[in-house]
Amino acid sequence: MNIEIKNAYALIDGSIGRHSIYIEKDLISGIDKEPKGFKAEKTIDGTDRLVIPGLINAHTHSYMAPLRNIADDMPFMDWLLKGVTPVEDSMSGEDAYWGAMLGIAEMIRCGTTTFNDMQMHIHNTTRAAKESGMRAVICRGLVGDRYDREDRRIKEALEELQDGEGTNGRLTFRLGPHAPYSAGFDYLRGVVDIAKEKGLGIHIHLAESDSEIENLKNDKGLTPIEYADKAGCFDVPCIAAHCVKVTPSDIALMAKKNVSVVTNPASNMKLGNGFAPVPEMIEAGINVCLGTDGAASNNSLNMFREIGLLTLIHKGTHNTPVCIGAGEAIKMATVNGAKALGLENTGEIKTGYKADLAILDLNTPSMVPRNDMLSGLAYSANGSEVDTTIADGEILMESRELKTIDLERVLYEAEAMMEKRRK
Amino acid sequence: MNIEIKNAYALIDGSIGRHSIYIEKDLISGIDKEPKGFKAEKTIDGTDRLVIPGLINAHTHSYMAPLRNIADDMPFMDWLLKGVTPVEDSMSGEDAYWGAMLGIAEMIRCGTTTFNDMQMHIHNTTRAAKESGMRAVICRGLVGDRYDREDRRIKEALEELQDGEGTNGRLTFRLGPHAPYSAGFDYLRGVVDIAKEKGLGIHIHLAESDSEIENLKNDKGLTPIEYADKAGCFDVPCIAAHCVKVTPSDIALMAKKNVSVVTNPASNMKLGNGFAPVPEMIEAGINVCLGTDGAASNNSLNMFREIGLLTLIHKGTHNTPVCIGAGEAIKMATVNGAKALGLENTGEIKTGYKADLAILDLNTPSMVPRNDMLSGLAYSANGSEVDTTIADGEILMESRELKTIDLERVLYEAEAMMEKRRK
Repeated sequence: MNIEIKNAYALIDGSIGRHSIYIEKDLISGIDKEPKGFKAEKTIDGTDRLVIPGLINAHTHSYMAPLRNIADDMPFMDWLLKGVTPVEDSMSGEDAYWGAMLGIAEMIRCGTTTFNDMQMHIHNTTRAAKESGMRAVICRGLVGDRYDREDRRIKEALEELQDGEGTNGRLTFRLGPHAPYSAGFDYLRGVVDIAKEKGLGIHIHLAESDSEIENLKNDKGLTPIEYADKAGCFDVPCIAAHCVKVTPSDIALMAKKNVSVVTNPASNMKLGNGFAPVPEMIEAGINVCLGTDGAASNNSLNMFREIGLLTLIHKGTHNTPVCIGAGEAIKMATVNGAKALGLENTGEIKTGYKADLAILDLNTPSMVPRNDMLSGLAYSANGSEVDTTIADGEILMESRELKTIDLERVLYEAEAMMEKRRK
Repeated sequence: MNIEIKNAYALIDGSIGRHSIYIEKDLISGIDKEPKGFKAEKTIDGTDRLVIPGLINAHTHSYMAPLRNIADDMPFMDWLLKGVTPVEDSMSGEDAYWGAMLGIAEMIRCGTTTFNDMQMHIHNTTRAAKESGMRAVICRGLVGDRYDREDRRIKEALEELQDGEGTNGRLTFRLGPHAPYSAGFDYLRGVVDIAKEKGLGIHIHLAESDSEIENLKNDKGLTPIEYADKAGCFDVPCIAAHCVKVTPSDIALMAKKNVSVVTNPASNMKLGNGFAPVPEMIEAGINVCLGTDGAASNNSLNMFREIGLLTLIHKGTHNTPVCIGAGEAIKMATVNGAKALGLENTGEIKTGYKADLAILDLNTPSMVPRNDMLSGLAYSANGSEVDTTIADGEILMESRELKTIDLERVLYEAEAMMEKRRK
């Protein structure tokens, strides 16, 4: 559909001004200058609207959305073993589909247009992502000790690659070795070999907790970053989630090897892991992007909440108001995510770029007055200001109404699946 | 108006269950049992609703809402002297009225029913609070060196006391000596004398920043807490905002003197002051409550955002998931605030208590499934779930529409006042 967003505020090249934006098919085909022969099939009045690049949630587990609030304020091992794992293990593919749909609905409502997902149920999540119209990068979580190409999880990952690749132009795949403590060294090496063979990137959890560091140090004498490097993870495009417990030499190694780091502030605090050295990683030249993690450990998939945390907590840990400013945080939540995920021409408002956009309603107390709307995005917005979400040129939400998802059904199914387990 | 909230989820005595709530005039007149002779003039269907005590924002400066996002990501002295102060000084009483209205509108939209306000323009804020229907405790910010009863600020504070006290039963007043660095010792003592004479409490900023500590140490050899105590502040009911930089003996002193502390997580991080030792203050038996501070240093008056920060950041600083749980945070944002402000029968859902309530719509992705709705309030909600806000038995918002405030006018006036200053 040809869409004209007329005379809106728009975040372009790091600053906000009045612009008109033209969309044809999946692309932004013009800014301020109407493309030749353009006929708007839909015009959005931008008077009191702010258009930003759609947010990119660079690390999540969408199918876990129904585990929201299932086990909070308890020690980590209780959270994991008594709270999360029994439910996760009992989820059917259908449960995972509705779970992913719930997560996707929440993300679209808060202006997210792309998510990077690690999954137990890759086929069902891929189905949900496809139906929703979101852009997604999906991997099957891979756990094992000895490498075996016939491993069920690896087979599932490769099947999806075969079936799903690019069916609507919005989905790509990665390989998802879970973490150093759950993917043995040979297994990890085997996964890296497949990644090289298939030209795929890797998505892995690294250096999340003290116990991970300690166990690996005792067992192998390596930090998680060194372990992943030694297994070859950094010889392919690699996204490392968390990286809370990294040393200066870990940081230097990741910078040298072009690893992209996803920071997950809410999850890292909530599980008692602390604060990642984000300013130091940025300083070292690492491409740092932002993610919510799954709803079991956040418990929200709202990227605006995450942006707020990102801009605030490091000012607290570093005792200065000048640390990860609003503009930098928005870049981390958009274009840095696109770079990490290997998505070309995505994450910025530019002619020829993908039409992935979130449009905020400025007529709300939290966004008034318009002293500095970029600051407003980081420090004042809570996500509910998002009125319209567009991915790949398709309107996924308009006037806060989801267009590709039957929200009532999704809420019903997600509640029903958990209600039965609570009995 | 007699209101029946029928068969809703409600947070009562720390847990959430199904209840019907009856409201007559300003009070909750029954729970589950319909009061004798009760005739509902309005019935709210509680099927997919969660009723909680209205949130209490225990430290803010509502008139500063138009300064939202005016000076972010810059050193503290630039923020203060180049950003905030010139605008603040240029605000007329009328500006302050519209500013307070903007802040109040934002608070009502996020389920806050009471705010504790320190003001430059007490008459105009009182007018705004009265018109809005919110419950408020208001003080004139008092700054000075030598005490003089004829001081303009003190006169304004006392005039308001005369004119405004209890006019709609929702407003009370305090005295607001600003801070140790802005209220000299004799001045502070004089203000305390008036407080004693008039039976008023005190609202003061204490121990917010390192520079405050250092200057006072050099000047008087005291910590801000010791200074305030020596001036007599703790001999009257005292609310101390911030208390970020407090020593163990400061904490013991405040506990002994029954000082209530208001923590302001966003503001303390944003201005680079760090994290208050909230778990330690609670452990010492201090009544700790929660506030947003003003919009210049937050930049939001959304108490749900503040609750989220409160529950997350101390888990980060203390490296444990078991630290300030959801239930404790909600208490801090409700009943602890009421206690600090000397509001009797307020801050809980109980028969005979003030009908100050926020009602959340549970049919939203962030609140589904209903695994643990108390956790949901702390870790998943962003404030936009609040559908209805009731203060003193009066509906201030219904279906997200403000009932006592002309929102369009308020947004227009707040933007106009700042637009003119940006030129």
